[in-house]
Amino acid sequence: MRAAVYYGNHKVEIEDVSEPEAGPGQVKIRVSRNGICGTDLHEFYDGPIFIPPSDPHPLTHKAMPVVLGHEFSGIVTAVGAGVDDVAEGDAVTIEPIYRCGECRPCRSGQYNLCKSIGFHGLMADGGMAEYTVVPRNQVHKLPDSIPVEMGALVEPMSVAYHAAVLGEVGDQSRALVYGAGPIGIGIWFALRGMGLTEIDVVEPSETRRRSIEALGARTLDPTSVDVPALIADRTDGDGVDAAFDAAGVAPAVESALECVGERRPLISVAIYDKPLSTPLINLVLRERRIQGTICYTADDYRAVIDLMAKGHYNTTGWVDTIALGDVVDGGFEELRAGRKMKLLVDPTA
Amino acid sequence: MRAAVYYGNHKVEIEDVSEPEAGPGQVKIRVSRNGICGTDLHEFYDGPIFIPPSDPHPLTHKAMPVVLGHEFSGIVTAVGAGVDDVAEGDAVTIEPIYRCGECRPCRSGQYNLCKSIGFHGLMADGGMAEYTVVPRNQVHKLPDSIPVEMGALVEPMSVAYHAAVLGEVGDQSRALVYGAGPIGIGIWFALRGMGLTEIDVVEPSETRRRSIEALGARTLDPTSVDVPALIADRTDGDGVDAAFDAAGVAPAVESALECVGERRPLISVAIYDKPLSTPLINLVLRERRIQGTICYTADDYRAVIDLMAKGHYNTTGWVDTIALGDVVDGGFEELRAGRKMKLLVDPTA
Repeated sequence: MRAAVYYGNHKVEIEDVSEPEAGPGQVKIRVSRNGICGTDLHEFYDGPIFIPPSDPHPLTHKAMPVVLGHEFSGIVTAVGAGVDDVAEGDAVTIEPIYRCGECRPCRSGQYNLCKSIGFHGLMADGGMAEYTVVPRNQVHKLPDSIPVEMGALVEPMSVAYHAAVLGEVGDQSRALVYGAGPIGIGIWFALRGMGLTEIDVVEPSETRRRSIEALGARTLDPTSVDVPALIADRTDGDGVDAAFDAAGVAPAVESALECVGERRPLISVAIYDKPLSTPLINLVLRERRIQGTICYTADDYRAVIDLMAKGHYNTTGWVDTIALGDVVDGGFEELRAGRKMKLLVDPTA
Repeated sequence: MRAAVYYGNHKVEIEDVSEPEAGPGQVKIRVSRNGICGTDLHEFYDGPIFIPPSDPHPLTHKAMPVVLGHEFSGIVTAVGAGVDDVAEGDAVTIEPIYRCGECRPCRSGQYNLCKSIGFHGLMADGGMAEYTVVPRNQVHKLPDSIPVEMGALVEPMSVAYHAAVLGEVGDQSRALVYGAGPIGIGIWFALRGMGLTEIDVVEPSETRRRSIEALGARTLDPTSVDVPALIADRTDGDGVDAAFDAAGVAPAVESALECVGERRPLISVAIYDKPLSTPLINLVLRERRIQGTICYTADDYRAVIDLMAKGHYNTTGWVDTIALGDVVDGGFEELRAGRKMKLLVDPTA
């Protein structure tokens, strides 16, 4: 079968590899779509970062080379011994986390913080291939109302949903989302799904603003509007109930720390390349907080699948599909240049 | 009466001023001791910052010049009309916050975040004087077991206690305190009062380490020990349950953000002069948070008074007393040079 194999920095080859088979407790999937994530770009341009170059990962026992791809959906084609609640023909989406089950975060249910965490598609052969095999606990069934292709978006939308949950908002809350990339869009969808109506998305790029506005979002251009002054004016100085940094840049953090109300959070969901100059005094004076968030657990997957089943997620204008052979030139390069926002790989094309 | 009057940057005069009288709802106090706070130093060397130079404060209707002093205790000498639960001769400590009672934080009981907050001794004539007059709601009675002089420490110890509460710790928790100045010492006392036994105080100054060790604390010298590595080793990688930054410097924040466990807080209680380079990625990857904290409410005062009544606070080796006339040379200058840690002013001397 054809697969996108990672051999190291700037080395991804589309090649024929042997088709995996489902062992005990495993599920074999014919991949429908696999999204390209910012993490994949980091591995290609700056990596290996998460992919183990030589020492096998403790849970997957796998090192480079690996088949990329951790955001995917597909159809079950076989199940291994002991798997009796998933069957051939089921449409599924994958929650690609390997966890030890024994460390403190795992014992408290927060396996997204497992000390030995691994990811299918980084520490095991992933979804940028015609077939892949995952453990049963990574499989979530998709209801008939969700097109199987769209199931590939459940993973990034769950990253965003998890961030939204940590915002501790209610349907009467006001929120600010910094950055209208895929995660910013996902946070906006998550907050809307929670019933919020007072959400502004702060984004300097006009293209990205137009894109999320077309989905129904209200936006602010921080290059032409003094966002903290506007929010203070609108809220009589109370500030917003939560802000989300899905931009990862100092101006977003600075602005957000002026906009959130007392005892309210700025949720950090960006992968910060380096330390940012952060005005911590703004935390102190209003008892604000900055809360980090990463990945998701099954609760987030279930919430996103429920919303998706109701037609909540609209992919118009920000999601495109490319063929497996185009992963590097038509995928990584387009995303890095900002010419595309979100790309799904069709491994059969 | 004699008082230390603030006239602006580098201008504090010891002079005779008229003795205030208690109006309706007010309490007149003969000051026993008044502590010098870092805020007073900021006002003297870098201010005016909080002290209104010309426009009167909305709650106190007062601007410069003001009598300094917001950390004080004393004996009630008179009460105004309508005050029937405080009487002449009562030993009291003052919670020096003026609050509007109407803004969102006030309505939720968090009047330490009042949008119009004022402080006795910054926005009203304070405790560096023989007498001062405060509203009834700033008065906390001191039980007989607390020497009235020690009551002047309730204010800074309440700042520290409030920070400890936001750490959300229990008696089995592990904690790290960065900085062994008066607030760091106060956090250590607060945590001990909450039943914690596993506390390390991180402090590069040998003098300060010796000082807090003499009180019974365990210390770490970050210039000779790799604190994150030590904590990881001791806790099997779990990290501490809360860290407190009472140092306000980048190395403390960086170290703390490696030491706290997943979903655990770094509590920021420092007044950061400028933005610090902050590795926010360390928040994201373990879902840690940085929580700001400022001042206190009456709950913190009551907790500190209860602990103080049991003899919990030991002032040996870190608290000294000076005469009112020495406020600048023997007070501000000594504290700024680091030759003294905490000074109480005796306005009768």
